[in-house]
Amino acid sequence: MPTKILPPSENAYAYPLLVKRLLDSAQRNENNNEIVYRGDLRFSYREFNERVCRLANALTAMGIKAGDTVAVMDWDSHRYLECFFAIPMIGAVLHTVNIRLSPEQITYTVNHAQDDVLLVHEDFLPVVETIQGELETVKNYVLLSDDGAAPSGALPFLGEYERLLAASDTAFDFPDFDENSVATMFYTTGTTGNPKGVYFTHRQLVLHTLVLIGTLGSTDSEPLLSRDGVYMPITPMFHVHAWGMPYAATMLGVKQVYPGRYVPDHLVRLIREEGVTFSHCVPTIFQMLLASDEAKHTDFSNWKLQVGGSALTAGLASRASELGIQIYSGYGMSETCPVLALTQIDRNIAALSAEEQTAYRTKAGRLVSLVDMQIWSPTGEPLPHDGVATGEIVVRTPWLTQGYLYEPEKGDELWRGGWMHTGDVACIHPDGFVEIRDRIKDVIKTGGEWISSLELESLISSHPLVDNVAVVGVPDERWGERPHACVVAKSGELVAETIKQHLSQFVETGQINKWAIPESIDLVTDIPKTSVGKIDKKRIRSSIN
Amino acid sequence: MPTKILPPSENAYAYPLLVKRLLDSAQRNENNNEIVYRGDLRFSYREFNERVCRLANALTAMGIKAGDTVAVMDWDSHRYLECFFAIPMIGAVLHTVNIRLSPEQITYTVNHAQDDVLLVHEDFLPVVETIQGELETVKNYVLLSDDGAAPSGALPFLGEYERLLAASDTAFDFPDFDENSVATMFYTTGTTGNPKGVYFTHRQLVLHTLVLIGTLGSTDSEPLLSRDGVYMPITPMFHVHAWGMPYAATMLGVKQVYPGRYVPDHLVRLIREEGVTFSHCVPTIFQMLLASDEAKHTDFSNWKLQVGGSALTAGLASRASELGIQIYSGYGMSETCPVLALTQIDRNIAALSAEEQTAYRTKAGRLVSLVDMQIWSPTGEPLPHDGVATGEIVVRTPWLTQGYLYEPEKGDELWRGGWMHTGDVACIHPDGFVEIRDRIKDVIKTGGEWISSLELESLISSHPLVDNVAVVGVPDERWGERPHACVVAKSGELVAETIKQHLSQFVETGQINKWAIPESIDLVTDIPKTSVGKIDKKRIRSSIN
Repeated sequence: MPTKILPPSENAYAYPLLVKRLLDSAQRNENNNEIVYRGDLRFSYREFNERVCRLANALTAMGIKAGDTVAVMDWDSHRYLECFFAIPMIGAVLHTVNIRLSPEQITYTVNHAQDDVLLVHEDFLPVVETIQGELETVKNYVLLSDDGAAPSGALPFLGEYERLLAASDTAFDFPDFDENSVATMFYTTGTTGNPKGVYFTHRQLVLHTLVLIGTLGSTDSEPLLSRDGVYMPITPMFHVHAWGMPYAATMLGVKQVYPGRYVPDHLVRLIREEGVTFSHCVPTIFQMLLASDEAKHTDFSNWKLQVGGSALTAGLASRASELGIQIYSGYGMSETCPVLALTQIDRNIAALSAEEQTAYRTKAGRLVSLVDMQIWSPTGEPLPHDGVATGEIVVRTPWLTQGYLYEPEKGDELWRGGWMHTGDVACIHPDGFVEIRDRIKDVIKTGGEWISSLELESLISSHPLVDNVAVVGVPDERWGERPHACVVAKSGELVAETIKQHLSQFVETGQINKWAIPESIDLVTDIPKTSVGKIDKKRIRSSIN
Repeated sequence: MPTKILPPSENAYAYPLLVKRLLDSAQRNENNNEIVYRGDLRFSYREFNERVCRLANALTAMGIKAGDTVAVMDWDSHRYLECFFAIPMIGAVLHTVNIRLSPEQITYTVNHAQDDVLLVHEDFLPVVETIQGELETVKNYVLLSDDGAAPSGALPFLGEYERLLAASDTAFDFPDFDENSVATMFYTTGTTGNPKGVYFTHRQLVLHTLVLIGTLGSTDSEPLLSRDGVYMPITPMFHVHAWGMPYAATMLGVKQVYPGRYVPDHLVRLIREEGVTFSHCVPTIFQMLLASDEAKHTDFSNWKLQVGGSALTAGLASRASELGIQIYSGYGMSETCPVLALTQIDRNIAALSAEEQTAYRTKAGRLVSLVDMQIWSPTGEPLPHDGVATGEIVVRTPWLTQGYLYEPEKGDELWRGGWMHTGDVACIHPDGFVEIRDRIKDVIKTGGEWISSLELESLISSHPLVDNVAVVGVPDERWGERPHACVVAKSGELVAETIKQHLSQFVETGQINKWAIPESIDLVTDIPKTSVGKIDKKRIRSSIN
């Protein structure tokens, strides 16, 4: 396309989209907002900015330069926020290490990412000490300590974080460079194989942040997060940039609360005492917060909560609503920076009763700006957004990992056909709400149609005699796959035929097709689970084949 | 800087920031919001999208291709909004012609921009018919008519806009191309010489829009414009993209009202009858609206108004506040896309009385995200943001014209030192508010200091015997320049010495330095004015020298 492209003035400044620009906005308006750690430490934005400069100087002094990789193992802290900025801003790459991985997996990711320095919180020293001998690229260690203790133990520490910062200058002239430079990386774990590295550039983080701020501010009658809000993450900062919210909160200059290790009573106390207005977490953590002692005497009515990671159930949404919590869902994944969709309540939905709103709030949300999403049939045809047609979600946005780190063939697979494949199966409603139905690997592909194993499990479990159920697809010569159910009965009365009859009522109402009824139903005593408690469909499938 | 730049997967989609992406967001959520023209025509976003496609097809059919330039002369209309999208989206350039220029200047700009097609509203036919013979590059004309009349008269029209659209298809596959392609251009007029062309790329417009949406939504306790708002521009669409708001409003999918030609009674009626919640205009238009008959029985209390172009006075701000209008200032210019700063009311300011808030609302606002601004001394040193130091505003943002069209030497001058020079003199307060003091050409440079001619005029005019005053700098061998005042007296009692004594009180209070007092004061009967009613300082200076 021969469009008109004009040469700029030779003096003109070509403004690259760099992470340092997010900090520009934060630091220039004096607003007395603080960055709080665990309720114990408080920093003004001016101090925060100085600490970012100090960290940049300390890293530079230890030999870190543009293109190097700095790994961090910490709980959610002001230190981590400083790393979110200082490391990319000197042109280096921040590797946010998943502290929940096994020591073997941590070793794999640190080596694979070619980390040059490791900043490690004292709580993780036992793990790091055991793997130190296997870390091939780490040249230096920095201790992160809440009490400022001097380093001790087996690791060759350069020093303790606070002492290094104290010895460093409060100014740093952050350079300009290519906006397509990698700023952050981290690893996503599947059920098989090694963790895969995803990576995000300065341009991607800036655009993700701009769109987040626009979405949080403009798509509800009251902003989810505006400059007068108070933000506390309850999704770990090592996990997809804590959904990118720390960048948005910092750019807005809001009060921020970093809670350290997640302890439900402590989290609830921080919400109450620091006046937190906006958080995000997975449903399990939210349930733990509500069940805590502190929750009994805490007013949550000024708290807005974004839930993601797994589906928000109607029950949990209702419970939130009873407590006066405005609850929202979100959708994204490690490969997507992560935000693709957020619950967006317009005036039509806001006019509904809390109960009626639940149907909207439990969906995966509406697409945020600049997200182009399609749902594809098994043969790769885009399907209509009619709330019925179900297909794999494929996306294009300016903030998707452009591949997997040092594994081009896996990146090509992720991006086949020029769209990023999420592995999620969904329908999209005419009003723009996305409804996740299944993971594509759990969907049963039969006769060119897709049957959601989750939906079948839900329908089967609605029978009063069913205790537990798992549905998988098994190979079928004629249909490709056919559904197979493993059912744990509450009593011996339950037979396979009962379940088929139970399901046939949903065929009559049109909720499922008649070929969704499994011919093959096993009554079992137990459903195999993975180490994190999910149904182990891989094991079920292999036990059948 | 050898930062880490990784090759993307060969399948990965590199998402360019293109204007079509703003429309993606608008069209996908069914929300029943309409685009209204004059209260007479109403289009759903679905219809709007179809009309953008129809226009793209019609333009393509008449031979317009990527890189061509399409000029528009219209009042604010749905048609203009369609042009804002369709023309850049096919890779062509939209030239928004300033309909207030003289026929000679219009001829100059159309020729200089090398316009290929001219879309012209019937109201401007008399002008275009007189200059047609001099238009060197225009190959085709399209008639814009409110009543759908077939073209008549002297111009060789290809057809009438509505008929061309009706004959065109409702789908168009808008291509991807380089985000640095020019999308829009228009001309800025100074007091001397020919109009200068500024131009903005797709990337610049997308980033400007994202930041606008974030600012409008997140920096006040209540969004200026959120998805449930109703938008009507009262700054012409030919003038710096109507401050970029039509792009933001469309991306948000809000109801939009385009008023046609500006007639105060009609504008107020639209505000009332269409429920407009957000507009922007220059102070003069706002005063005309308030003085209209329709204003007498109109409740403005749901209306938020952004004022810019020239300073909002305290009197006008108070008047707005009495009527319940939330009033905001903005700052920018043709070269800056335009938004650099907007009034941003945080909780501290919101807690003040309406009267106390006026001091904030009449300043030029706080910088929006991604705007890097400095104030420079006469010798090019950055000055502190202490609310006292005054210097020329220089800026860097991702959305500044990268030069003047086809005049590289003027672009180099605009961008000298790698910063865009605004020609405005201001101080910046510690709370981030920018306060414009003067145009640099009107500032008096004396002994390495700058004296604001506007401030001196304001102080002199506060004397009860002064009817009118103009202050200019005149060359001085020792000091560079010295202030010179021309004063129109209300009575013969006024002498130069009175004015010097009057000013000396402000020296004592520290408001001005003692060398700001003009030694040279002429009592005159009249102050020379320009054709648009501004003080003609150039003429005053030349009459003295």
